[in-house]
Amino acid sequence: TYVVLKVQNLKSTTIDKRGSEPCWEQDFMFEVCADGKGFIIELWKKGWLWDSILGVLWIPFDSVEHATEEGPGSWWTLHSEVIKNGSEIQGTKTSTSYEILLDVYFALPF
Amino acid sequence: TYVVLKVQNLKSTTIDKRGSEPCWEQDFMFEVCADGKGFIIELWKKGWLWDSILGVLWIPFDSVEHATEEGPGSWWTLHSEVIKNGSEIQGTKTSTSYEILLDVYFALPF
Repeated sequence: TYVVLKVQNLKSTTIDKRGSEPCWEQDFMFEVCADGKGFIIELWKKGWLWDSILGVLWIPFDSVEHATEEGPGSWWTLHSEVIKNGSEIQGTKTSTSYEILLDVYFALPF
Repeated sequence: TYVVLKVQNLKSTTIDKRGSEPCWEQDFMFEVCADGKGFIIELWKKGWLWDSILGVLWIPFDSVEHATEEGPGSWWTLHSEVIKNGSEIQGTKTSTSYEILLDVYFALPF
């Protein structure tokens, strides 16, 4: 199982972890452009030939708070559907049984 | 640069190749469900932290012909925008400068 982060036209991927409670402990940092609305988290199950998506989550930037250091994070339920308006993502819906612990925050530039 | 194929909730990825004319020569075979409408090809540039998307292409199944063996393939221009209706992909638009040679065909089961 691995996680994909998508922000604007960029993406980054965690390593693949086994087991029913995989733990990645990977940090991702990215700059946000002024008209950015949020980012996407995808959970994928790695297969031999094909990977299958387990869940997806849209996190709007206006739900993200500022912080100066890492915190405990919070659990998010992943969804099965992406809501789009044309090519613009507006959200996700329909809960899956998958949850992910994320610590998401805005940091000021160094 | 690598290519991602997406069909329904599955995806598969080529290896990452360098250079301005990368050649993957990888075969992908998948079953199509009766209500499937097409599949997505994505071209990604691999970065150190973040990968960026170079182009995307929606190939509708009704544009794919039957064949019994590999052919010369044809060049497709990749697009920059995905057209969706809710969560259903309808097509892609706006040409990029990227083209990809694909040999796409329906094969009967063995």
